[in-house]
Amino acid sequence: MTSIDLNADLGEGFGRWTLTDDERLLSVVTSANVACGFHAGDAVTMQRVCELAAGRGVRVGAQVSYRDLAGFGRRAMDVPPAELAAEVAYQIGALEVFARAAGTRVSYVKPHGALYNRVVHDQEQAEAVVAGVRLAGAALPVLGLPGSRLLERAAEAGLPAVTEAFADRAYTDGGTLVPRGRDGAVVTDAEAVVERSLGLAHTGQVVSHTGAPVAVRARSLCLHGDTPGAVELARRVRERLTASGVRVEAFA
Amino acid sequence: MTSIDLNADLGEGFGRWTLTDDERLLSVVTSANVACGFHAGDAVTMQRVCELAAGRGVRVGAQVSYRDLAGFGRRAMDVPPAELAAEVAYQIGALEVFARAAGTRVSYVKPHGALYNRVVHDQEQAEAVVAGVRLAGAALPVLGLPGSRLLERAAEAGLPAVTEAFADRAYTDGGTLVPRGRDGAVVTDAEAVVERSLGLAHTGQVVSHTGAPVAVRARSLCLHGDTPGAVELARRVRERLTASGVRVEAFA
Amino acid sequence: MTSIDLNADLGEGFGRWTLTDDERLLSVVTSANVACGFHAGDAVTMQRVCELAAGRGVRVGAQVSYRDLAGFGRRAMDVPPAELAAEVAYQIGALEVFARAAGTRVSYVKPHGALYNRVVHDQEQAEAVVAGVRLAGAALPVLGLPGSRLLERAAEAGLPAVTEAFADRAYTDGGTLVPRGRDGAVVTDAEAVVERSLGLAHTGQVVSHTGAPVAVRARSLCLHGDTPGAVELARRVRERLTASGVRVEAFA
Amino acid sequence: MTSIDLNADLGEGFGRWTLTDDERLLSVVTSANVACGFHAGDAVTMQRVCELAAGRGVRVGAQVSYRDLAGFGRRAMDVPPAELAAEVAYQIGALEVFARAAGTRVSYVKPHGALYNRVVHDQEQAEAVVAGVRLAGAALPVLGLPGSRLLERAAEAGLPAVTEAFADRAYTDGGTLVPRGRDGAVVTDAEAVVERSLGLAHTGQVVSHTGAPVAVRARSLCLHGDTPGAVELARRVRERLTASGVRVEAFA
Repeated sequence: MTSIDLNADLGEGFGRWTLTDDERLLSVVTSANVACGFHAGDAVTMQRVCELAAGRGVRVGAQVSYRDLAGFGRRAMDVPPAELAAEVAYQIGALEVFARAAGTRVSYVKPHGALYNRVVHDQEQAEAVVAGVRLAGAALPVLGLPGSRLLERAAEAGLPAVTEAFADRAYTDGGTLVPRGRDGAVVTDAEAVVERSLGLAHTGQVVSHTGAPVAVRARSLCLHGDTPGAVELARRVRERLTASGVRVEAFA
Repeated sequence: MTSIDLNADLGEGFGRWTLTDDERLLSVVTSANVACGFHAGDAVTMQRVCELAAGRGVRVGAQVSYRDLAGFGRRAMDVPPAELAAEVAYQIGALEVFARAAGTRVSYVKPHGALYNRVVHDQEQAEAVVAGVRLAGAALPVLGLPGSRLLERAAEAGLPAVTEAFADRAYTDGGTLVPRGRDGAVVTDAEAVVERSLGLAHTGQVVSHTGAPVAVRARSLCLHGDTPGAVELARRVRERLTASGVRVEAFA
Repeated sequence: MTSIDLNADLGEGFGRWTLTDDERLLSVVTSANVACGFHAGDAVTMQRVCELAAGRGVRVGAQVSYRDLAGFGRRAMDVPPAELAAEVAYQIGALEVFARAAGTRVSYVKPHGALYNRVVHDQEQAEAVVAGVRLAGAALPVLGLPGSRLLERAAEAGLPAVTEAFADRAYTDGGTLVPRGRDGAVVTDAEAVVERSLGLAHTGQVVSHTGAPVAVRARSLCLHGDTPGAVELARRVRERLTASGVRVEAFA
Repeated sequence: MTSIDLNADLGEGFGRWTLTDDERLLSVVTSANVACGFHAGDAVTMQRVCELAAGRGVRVGAQVSYRDLAGFGRRAMDVPPAELAAEVAYQIGALEVFARAAGTRVSYVKPHGALYNRVVHDQEQAEAVVAGVRLAGAALPVLGLPGSRLLERAAEAGLPAVTEAFADRAYTDGGTLVPRGRDGAVVTDAEAVVERSLGLAHTGQVVSHTGAPVAVRARSLCLHGDTPGAVELARRVRERLTASGVRVEAFA
């Protein structure tokens, strides 16, 4: 039986500010990418999200980022590798406290925003992220794009490399994401997103922006929760996956 | 045979800025209060200090603080208890990563600056610090002033309460510190500091600012390393303690 | 003809996060308390709010705060006076750039959150805020509670002291605010808020929480915009004030 | 008579941490690049440096930076142009308050660290810095490398473009700096630095790293003050310039 993981970013508020609808998202996803304080996420929020996730059997992952609250981690930064590795480890360690207190553990790592995009191609930062995960001790799985430097370096270092796909993003014929900002980069039609999710889960294929079928390996689908209607769409994706015979569960 | 622990604040730089002479201090003390990023301490510095400490057999402790880089944690803050507890846990968790990577563990917790002073009297924040330590999991010892609310609450919660004294601070007849800012609050004569250290270690007594002998229980002496000559004085204290038959070692 | 100013906090987002509905609020109020980056407010938001305010003829004021993004400026801090004064001046200066670029000026200063509450009673911090305003150059009006140390010190220093009242807060018989957290501290019934606004504007009186009429001098009414329905209520207050013959305009 | 400006970075501490020897440097330079809080510089330090500079007749300039205290502004960041422009304006405005309070004005702008290096080649960020300066109101001179995109864009926008050179850095035959990290990139011999300063001031030439004479236009020489012996060397450069008939004075 086909199975797929559903992941989403959670706990992305900071102090007085909230962003993600954590409670509702946690009733949909199987893996929660929890912000660790560098682009978002304060200690109280981290504690609460870990408790909620553990209570629902949702897996907790560390959503690590550049140190950039003002830019929400969306601005690429030339952080020296040793510094980046240490910052990644720092974030994992901070989250681990709350995961353990809630009766679970940090079970994977996923870079956020500009760091996520950077380690698709940047060898040095990809190695630094992997070094940070290893510094943090456990051989945690790393979540990223298929073919990314990050997953290559993770695999070489003996960390499980977990591929993910985006049902709401257009793909090129080469199987990479059409960059945001280009026409049609984001799929906004809800039914289309659902259909693409089904295709990704069942056949490992999606229709590219030129109309050609393209293979996209993905052990996890990334869902979004920070726009109006997003949680509702995520729920619909999950229901349709389940109805079509896909087992929705955290990656092994 | 009498034994005493020597502790000092370390890793109190931030990014480009340095403050404490970590390498030299680590050749003197038996316990290192490592800054965890809230009043000072970046990830790279935390990693380096943990490696140095582990290499020298110096115990690593989490020097937890209010979130206040601009004020170096020296400004009292009315942080709500749940928030303070979570922030304490966050800091311990972040440091634990580097301690483990260096082959050791976070072995105790000591509040810094304004938080240290506040929890002498403030029940609510004292409880919050203890709650934060417990949230972080292990039943870590807590270092503080004898008679402080912090050590009372720690003991009640089943955490080892470790008393400390300051050989370079004047004491009242009641055994409390003469507040900074008052005349004679700080003992600047090096030989006097050495003599007071010997008294504290051997007899558990120190001469108060009125000239009376006063009992000051202390399992640890706090030394300073952020002023010129401080490390030299710390080294002299250690040598004289050893020469007088005191075993200088980390508290049990 | 009676006239009254309506003020509200604006620009209280930070980077990716938003809070106040600035555009809609600016169609209601006559004075905009713009966050200056210490508790909220990034440079882009400050620029945009100043442009919107200037375009609508709404006066721009500097909403100065403790340096505390994580706590949204709601945690009292023991900031030394010289530091607090410099920080107040820094915030005013930063906002002034955007006010001028938009064709207007910073026209008053209002402390935010914990600082606002602190300078009701704290002489030292009240003096520091006034010193900061004077350091910033112009003899700017200061907005605060009637009878507060802040307004006393402002008046002594030659700064216009502008009183404000809260139509949605309960008052004691002595004319002070019933502290938040006490039963009935916040008036939630919309019509009651409107009625109290009318009373404050026309008679300078409000019914206390014991049912007695109490005098509350107020040249300005503070409206809120960070809760659902808040902007709609603010608009209703303005309409009813106008309909009852009050001129809604910025204080002189 | 030949004249030259001497500039240096000042006020680069933050809270408890100090870096530059501001008082001594201010007895040497004619232009002070004051940190504005984004890579270094707190409000109290900014106030003090402005007072000291004004008291000595040293010109005050805004040393603007990426928002990056942890990295001391030394990590290139992909900040969107509108955001960068607003952040530059914010910093200038904040410093202006303290300059005015000290009886002077912000008289020029110089980018710091990674931003300085980036705007040598990056059109978009160079334009953004210029837009920020213009947003701040006055047509302030901009200090940078000859041939940089920054000075080109500044000149186009009607801002005085002021060239600077580094007597302690090696130059290529093309008149650009040998990148840090390469062998011989930094000139460490004090007498060589003095000789190069004299050459730059008198002939507008310096010997390149291949031994060829190369033209380097410079209205200002940048001196450093954050290493041991740096202030002493800066003083020696000034004395030798004066002794050789160069008038050391702020650029017009």
